[in-house]
Order: sequence, then C-alpha cells, then structure tokens
Amino acid sequence: VNKSSILNTESAILQSIAGDFPRHPSQLNGLLEADAEIISVPGKTDEWLVLKTDGIHEEIKEKLYEDPYLVGWMTVTAPISDIAAVGACPTGILLSLVLPRHYSDEWLQQFKAGINDACSTYNIYVLGGDTNFDDILSVSSTAIATIKFKSPLLRTGMKPGDSLYATGRLGMGNAYAYYQLFDPTISVDYQPVARLKESKTISQFASACMDSSDGLFPALSVLSEINGLGFQLTTPLQSILGPGVLPTQQRASLPAWMFLAGPHGEYELLFTVPERANKKFRQACEDENWQPVFLGEVIPENKLIFFSESLEIHCHPGTIANLFYESGGNIQTYFERLMLQHKKWSNP
Amino acid sequence: VNKSSILNTESAILQSIAGDFPRHPSQLNGLLEADAEIISVPGKTDEWLVLKTDGIHEEIKEKLYEDPYLVGWMTVTAPISDIAAVGACPTGILLSLVLPRHYSDEWLQQFKAGINDACSTYNIYVLGGDTNFDDILSVSSTAIATIKFKSPLLRTGMKPGDSLYATGRLGMGNAYAYYQLFDPTISVDYQPVARLKESKTISQFASACMDSSDGLFPALSVLSEINGLGFQLTTPLQSILGPGVLPTQQRASLPAWMFLAGPHGEYELLFTVPERANKKFRQACEDENWQPVFLGEVIPENKLIFFSESLEIHCHPGTIANLFYESGGNIQTYFERLMLQHKKWSNP
Repeated sequence: VNKSSILNTESAILQSIAGDFPRHPSQLNGLLEADAEIISVPGKTDEWLVLKTDGIHEEIKEKLYEDPYLVGWMTVTAPISDIAAVGACPTGILLSLVLPRHYSDEWLQQFKAGINDACSTYNIYVLGGDTNFDDILSVSSTAIATIKFKSPLLRTGMKPGDSLYATGRLGMGNAYAYYQLFDPTISVDYQPVARLKESKTISQFASACMDSSDGLFPALSVLSEINGLGFQLTTPLQSILGPGVLPTQQRASLPAWMFLAGPHGEYELLFTVPERANKKFRQACEDENWQPVFLGEVIPENKLIFFSESLEIHCHPGTIANLFYESGGNIQTYFERLMLQHKKWSNP
Repeated sequence: VNKSSILNTESAILQSIAGDFPRHPSQLNGLLEADAEIISVPGKTDEWLVLKTDGIHEEIKEKLYEDPYLVGWMTVTAPISDIAAVGACPTGILLSLVLPRHYSDEWLQQFKAGINDACSTYNIYVLGGDTNFDDILSVSSTAIATIKFKSPLLRTGMKPGDSLYATGRLGMGNAYAYYQLFDPTISVDYQPVARLKESKTISQFASACMDSSDGLFPALSVLSEINGLGFQLTTPLQSILGPGVLPTQQRASLPAWMFLAGPHGEYELLFTVPERANKKFRQACEDENWQPVFLGEVIPENKLIFFSESLEIHCHPGTIANLFYESGGNIQTYFERLMLQHKKWSNP
C-alpha cells in the first residue's frame, strides 16, 4: 500500500526509512514525488526505466482479501496501477511470496489464475520471483516498465486553476471493505483494473497524476502536501460514487465522503489538467470512448473544500487521511473516528 | 533463498507456482536456467535488462539473522550476488519490508546502516520500496541491472572436462549457522560480499555460473540437473573450507562435507571454465590479484564424486541438497539427517 501521510508514528517510521537513503543521480523523482520510481536511461533524454514494488500484506492480514483469485489479481494490479500513473508501458512483474505450507492445491491454482488473468489483461509477463514458506501469507511484487519519447507523469506539477479528474467513479474500495469487514449481507464486487489504456491519453495532457489505491482523500492529501496547494471539489461527492457503492451506502446510512476516506481505494487515476489543455483532453477522451469524472479544481490555499450531501466542508487536506493513521491501523477504531469526525462536521 | 531441488513437496509447490506462468518472449533464460532474470532490450542484440527478487524470510524466522545490520546487509547482498552470477552491472534495488511496529529507532538505524553500507560497497542505490507493518519481520528486495556489449552468464552451458572453480573458500555460511543455532560459544563472523568485481573476469571466460547462496552442494545439484551432467571434486573438501570454518569444524568434530551441504551458503560464485580458456582465465585472475579456488571438473555422468577427510563419496548430485528438503525445513531434523548420512557413508 502507498503511504499517504507523514504526521504520525507509522508515517514517521516510513519517512525515516526511505528518507535516509541517498538518491540515484539518474533518478528523476524525489521521495513521494511519483507513484513509481523513474530512472533515466543513460545517453537518452526521452527514455526512462520505471520500477515499482508494492506489497499486499495488511489487506490479507485484515481479511480484506480472502479469495486467492483476488489476492493474485491484486498482486499484479497494485504495482501496474502505479506504472499507469506515471504514463509508462509495463514489461512484467517479479513476485515475492511468503506462503503457508498447508495451502491446498486448489488455493494455489486460484491464486495463479488471478495472477495469469491480470497479466493477460495488461499484456505483461511474470519474469521471475522468490517463494518462502511460513505460517502467514504475504505477497509483494515489483513491476518493470519503460517510457519512451515522452516525459513521465509525476505527482508534482499541478497549478491553481487546473481541473481535477478521475478515470472513473470512486468508492468501490471502501464499499468492498465495509462489506468484507462489517456487513457480509451486502455483496460488493471488487476487481479493479489498472488504467493503462486511459493513462496513454492522460500522459499527453495532465500536469500531475496519482492513483487512488489508498482512496481519494489520502491521495489528495499527498498531492496537496507535495505541491503546496489544495483542492476544491465542486462536484458533490454523492454524485462521484460508483453505482456499486450506492446499495452499501444506503444500507449503512453513511455519508458519501466516508467511501472516499480510504485507506482501501479503487485504483482509478486522479489527475490534473491545465485550463489550456482541457478542451483537447476532453476531445481525446471522447475519441477513445471514455469519459473522465470531473471532480473540481486545484486551489492556491493548502486546504480541501467539498460537499457531501447537505454538508459543505472546509478542512486541512490531511484531516481525513490521518484518521486512519491516528487509529493505529485498527479498523474498528478507524470506523469510530470516521463517525466522530462526521458528527463534528454535522454539529459544529 | 534460491530453491535448489524439485524432488519433494516444498519444491513441487515452487515448481508448480513458477512453472505455470508463460515466459516473456524476450526473456533469455528458462526457469532455473540463470541466477537472475534476463530480458533482451528491444532492438539490441547485446544489451540486456537483468532483474532479481530475493526474500530474506526463513533466515530471520530461524533466528539465523538477528543483528539488524546483518539483515540490512544481506537484503542488498543476496540479490546482488545473483546479479554478479549472470555477469551484470547493478543499478540499484527496491525494498519490500514487513516491519514490526514496536521496533526501536536503534534497530531501524542499524538496519539502514547495513543497507547503506552494502549499497556503497556495490556502488548502487535504493531506488524505492514499500513498507507494511505486522508482528513479524520479513524483507525482500529486487535488484535491477544491465548487461552491455557481452552475453549473459547462465547456469547452463558447461561441458564435460570444464574446470569447476569458486571465487573463494567455502563453508562460512554453514559455520555461521552452526554457531548461531547450536553453539553460541564459538564466534563466527559472517558478512559475505557479492562478487561483482570477480564477475567481470569470470563472465569473459566461464561456460556457466551460479552463486553459492544455498551452499555448494545444493548449487552443484541444480547445475548437474539442468546440464544433465555431474561433478568430480578432485580437491579434498577439507582444503577448500575457509579459515574461519576450521575452529567450528574442530570444536564440533564435523566432517568437511557438512559445511558445504547448505542450505545457508557463503555467496561465492561457482563457475566452470572450458579447458581452452583455462590458461587465459588464470592469467586474468593473476593480473587482477585474486585467486580462484579450483574444486574439480565437470563429468558426463549425472553423479557427484568428492573426498571428505578419509572418505571417498560417489552419490547422486541431489542426495545432499535433498536432506534439507526431506527434513521439512526443521533445522534439528536436518542436522540429524546429516549425521545419519555421514554414518551411512562411513560404515557402508
């Protein structure tokens, strides 16, 4: 999972781990500045090697992913979504697996089917890997990709006035988590597809991009922080929720913003487009038969403004993302904090 | 850890995982045919992208690596040793970490120091990574490297009559394991250095290469199997043990072969040199001030012949490597099986 905040202990550890290593002189992106690592190819000005390691560990531990097919699918999709966010073209992945010895052959077959189907979908290959055995299941994968004849897309580069879009409607990741963890009577399908195809168009027009693997608000928190800017989401949140989210939202009677709070996202791309490129971008999307979801715009102030049902919220861009970190990764505590935050906003 | 056998359940699972994925059309090496994954660069006949993922999991679980500095050092050294074995030049690594939340700042500092020192030694960089939190410690890393203007070195390609060498004396990995697991009164230093420098010479002359990360005999088992050949080790094993192994050997009264049985190796390179290249190879080593350790030669029969103290052993190349797998990863059982095997050979 991507980490989205540097305001508390867990994030401080993450910052402390990654922050102390010297950077490769040919690495384009600074720490947190891109969804994937971008290394310039020696002697070329418009060729880049792109790499991303992503672990699926907490999702398994918290029983968010129990179906072996989904674990396999996500093992591939998680890093490939980051590859899409920088506008790169993937070659393949390497797997790093910790498998319980007692797993059945049926489990393994399903796991591999998920990996194989995702690889076919993205037209990539498993290039290698390493397997260890233990009592727990833990998977991680590294994606390799290239960028040629264009510039990589970073998380930095947006300007006030740029439009903020998503490749699709949002909230499925949290609706699925709610179903998995709190209410098994609602059935929510969850099998996100990394937005490689859309990324080709986006990388021609966007000023910045990041995927929503950790949810919308955690992504906006990171984008706000590293750009020193903020966002005004002019589209009311209830109308950017995916149709699959609505049954869960109605049954659980939860406000729209909670389905965008993270930390389990939907692997859409979030990106900003400068005003001068907006018309051409919309035309290009139309030519390719997809419709980006308009969310709002970049503002110069380091704040977040949005509408969720009858509420108009103005807050610090990190407020919502930090609720998860403040609960120490405990899902029950996190849910209580979400409810408490909503109460505060509803009765100020 | 590399896996070295396909004769039992654990190996069957490994084979079943990796064997079912289609290979990338540009991937040079088949399954198990090289220490790292080798992908040809589009449009080039003598340029290759090289990748390797290696996990340090069982070594931590079995308390072989407890010192955080050593864990950090080995996280980098393990995949870089494989990069050296194919004759590639490394760019950097990506880390995939599972860290316990309660680890102290001192632990983290030591862990990072091990990573940083190894990176400096190999002139590479940490390019990125991902960190998850759990109760256990588990690390994995992916190395990225390139090969230019020459052919990669594979595990395949040796011929009967080729000389078998190692970059250094062997047995330190098992001596260290014995110290760590069975007799803390003996102190054994263990901090192997990946043989990148020597690999530059070796890749000019060798017909095949593999590192000894899993120990000598497991490596010879793999090399025998994939080449359909065997080895006669004409140098008595007691004289190829590193000087640091001798105190442990004497105190434990163990035969030399046990220190080469694996599964914890010393990260030397094992390689074969054709007769016609032997003289030039020895001269090149002398010019660069290092001396390869001559072990014996490749034989056409699928068997292994060696001398350990007063014993002359003829066995199947997989016999020793399989003792570990047959003990289901249990170290105590493994040690008993080693002793039993020695008894069989001593009193046939």
